[in-house]
Amino acid sequence: MRLLSLVDLLFLLVEKRKQPMHVGGLFLFEVPKDAQEDFVLSLVQQMQNSTVPPTFPFNQVLHNLTYWKNDDEFDVEHHFRHIALPKPARVRELLSYISKEHGRLLDRARPLWECHIIEGIEPESDGRPKRFGLYFKIHHSLVDGIAAMRLVQKSLSQSPNETITLPLWALMMRHRHQIESVIPKERGIGSIIKDQLQTAKPVMGELLSALKIDKDSSYVRTTQAPPSILNQSISSSRRFIADSYDIARFKRVANNLGVSINDVVLTVCSGALRRYLLSINELPKDPLIAWVPYSMRKDETVAGNQFAFILCNLGTHLASPLERLKLVHNSMNDGKKRFGRMSQAEVVNYSLVAYSWEFVNIFTNAYPKKHAFNLIISNVPGSQKKLYWNGAELRALYPASILFNGQAMNITLASYLDRIEFGIVACSKTLPKIQSLLKMLEDELGQLETICTERELGIRE
Amino acid sequence: MRLLSLVDLLFLLVEKRKQPMHVGGLFLFEVPKDAQEDFVLSLVQQMQNSTVPPTFPFNQVLHNLTYWKNDDEFDVEHHFRHIALPKPARVRELLSYISKEHGRLLDRARPLWECHIIEGIEPESDGRPKRFGLYFKIHHSLVDGIAAMRLVQKSLSQSPNETITLPLWALMMRHRHQIESVIPKERGIGSIIKDQLQTAKPVMGELLSALKIDKDSSYVRTTQAPPSILNQSISSSRRFIADSYDIARFKRVANNLGVSINDVVLTVCSGALRRYLLSINELPKDPLIAWVPYSMRKDETVAGNQFAFILCNLGTHLASPLERLKLVHNSMNDGKKRFGRMSQAEVVNYSLVAYSWEFVNIFTNAYPKKHAFNLIISNVPGSQKKLYWNGAELRALYPASILFNGQAMNITLASYLDRIEFGIVACSKTLPKIQSLLKMLEDELGQLETICTERELGIRE
Repeated sequence: MRLLSLVDLLFLLVEKRKQPMHVGGLFLFEVPKDAQEDFVLSLVQQMQNSTVPPTFPFNQVLHNLTYWKNDDEFDVEHHFRHIALPKPARVRELLSYISKEHGRLLDRARPLWECHIIEGIEPESDGRPKRFGLYFKIHHSLVDGIAAMRLVQKSLSQSPNETITLPLWALMMRHRHQIESVIPKERGIGSIIKDQLQTAKPVMGELLSALKIDKDSSYVRTTQAPPSILNQSISSSRRFIADSYDIARFKRVANNLGVSINDVVLTVCSGALRRYLLSINELPKDPLIAWVPYSMRKDETVAGNQFAFILCNLGTHLASPLERLKLVHNSMNDGKKRFGRMSQAEVVNYSLVAYSWEFVNIFTNAYPKKHAFNLIISNVPGSQKKLYWNGAELRALYPASILFNGQAMNITLASYLDRIEFGIVACSKTLPKIQSLLKMLEDELGQLETICTERELGIRE
Repeated sequence: MRLLSLVDLLFLLVEKRKQPMHVGGLFLFEVPKDAQEDFVLSLVQQMQNSTVPPTFPFNQVLHNLTYWKNDDEFDVEHHFRHIALPKPARVRELLSYISKEHGRLLDRARPLWECHIIEGIEPESDGRPKRFGLYFKIHHSLVDGIAAMRLVQKSLSQSPNETITLPLWALMMRHRHQIESVIPKERGIGSIIKDQLQTAKPVMGELLSALKIDKDSSYVRTTQAPPSILNQSISSSRRFIADSYDIARFKRVANNLGVSINDVVLTVCSGALRRYLLSINELPKDPLIAWVPYSMRKDETVAGNQFAFILCNLGTHLASPLERLKLVHNSMNDGKKRFGRMSQAEVVNYSLVAYSWEFVNIFTNAYPKKHAFNLIISNVPGSQKKLYWNGAELRALYPASILFNGQAMNITLASYLDRIEFGIVACSKTLPKIQSLLKMLEDELGQLETICTERELGIRE
């Protein structure tokens, strides 16, 4: 038995029917070309029939919202689902399945995770083998989004010839020291309260200085986000859409225009959001503000608060992609410089300021029209190496994140090999027809590419 | 817009994560022998692409827990799921799918129902065609269990040659006058309160007379149900098991032993429960008490409070099936006679008495060890006529009912053609391994049949 940490408890307390607090990911595999017809069934049976008990955190069950304890009655049947998509089993049908599952609460009588194996997905293109999906969801009180993606990735192999016989939820044995860094640490309430008290003074300082700052267009104030349809009350219905884009396309634009790949990604998102909001007649006069987690680490680990949270002006009021890219670039640079001058503690405090409206709203809904940002656009570390599951090649991985009341859309990206993978979650009742966003992302990226081509040809400056 | 009735509101208020308030049913069809390979897909597309709006009650959405209103943004995708079972797609895998779905809350942002089409189920036996399932769930605030089963049945045809082009949820157009009687009626709060006040005196009278009654073994007091594992706190996990038995087998026992078919059904349930509780070392010393809805109507309708609720002594303390059958028979007869002497109003009042502990517990959990009965065993009207869906024959229909906190098992039966169909729902965390109940039902029925054979052969009196 282990006391819930304050963070665990918060994630459990804010969870509501309309606001489930789990993160997820969709992993899309290709059945090996020479595999038996029952390849997926064998994988499933191997997991279902395994007598190896689940390892931490997959064996932790809630006890009276006070303790985590080992689940003595662990029954894999409640965590593991094996279904097939009926024909036509296109990616569209797969995403529809994930959308429905992602909106559903996890069962608090059990360890808070689920693993779905989805069979029979159509080939990616003619001549390619059939695919199958792995959809994993796990409660944010157990791990954060990055850790969740890592947990699954760590359980895969970098070799097509390696056979993994343990189920995913028992794999921690294999990678214990790698995994421990991604599990939330246990801390006493005393130490947490002490930390909070120490932040009070610098947080006040930041708040005051933020109020004093001139109207420099690169600096984004926490009171600047305009009211928008993205910040309405959410229902419990989710739509999950996902697609992959060649990273080379973003790289070309970045090099040509002298900005970072991340700036291009944000500008493409901004352009697509502008198109989407225009299409439903909901574009705010003022630019949308995105909350962009930005890694401050130079190494590969993800433990602790090693992230800064930059408020990025998306420039959605600007029709010109180039002007928007410039604004995004300046806004991100301002944030990076600001954080570069700060200590780690100050970054955390600053983030608390940026977050303040959101925290108040999540708990009390007191300022339903007031948000520190309009949406989260987050980049989750993927993998630079090709991954396999018993010879089945991982073709794509799409993160699926959390929505809060007042935050009806989340865009999360991951890089995998030479691609950027977009996973977008939205409340489908608040935000209609978000499927169209995928086409709009493509159009927006295409427009920036055209500009590069014109510059290369000397037609444009 | 239509005000919620008090009953609607109660069902919505008592609903919790661990206590979903929807009823359901599994309908198992056989693909017609000469059908195209995409027969099921065509059915699905016909429903998905229909432009006919859903009819009452399928178009009603909650508004602030105060009103029902027409859902202007009805989106069939949130109500309708089409999946396939991966191989091996046996009934076991089908029931596992339904178990998981039955434990999940409906989305209150939408009309409170879901329809699942499950493809690719293995043939019933060699040479028979493949099967597909229809699982329907609908909130008890919209319809009760009997109405829910009827809604689906009414939407089917009695002819293999009739083609139904409307989706199930728009079929009400076709049968409006038949359906209206199964929808809860709108009543003013005033009329409901008046009714309640009028029952106060007779209810008190019943309570007093119940306390005064001698210890006649046929009479079941509302304070008699022993504490048992069936009456523990429930989790949100459900196990749904189902099977069909030839009605002729029950009829033979009933005729041979001079009791009703319903007495035999209850005795078989009682024997299986005794075996099950013995197997997990949880058989109470005192007999289990079942709450058995008993129809008082002579006609075919189901509207209003036309049911008596008999408390039946299941005699689970008795090892002898014959002694148990006798006790069940006497207990049911006592209940029937009692109700035969009462007016309709008195029957309702009496039921309120029987229910009182349960109501108190559902709302307050004040007497967690005190229950008026140990489980519900309910008989839902099925169909005497063979039913079809665009030529696909309905092979079986299994009701799936509600659990309450402190009521961890529900046995519901339906008759279809020449069979009795058992649908048993239990909290799988509170009651382990209930799959074994199906075998125990068969064993128990077999034991009664052996007794009959011995009597026919003159070996036994």
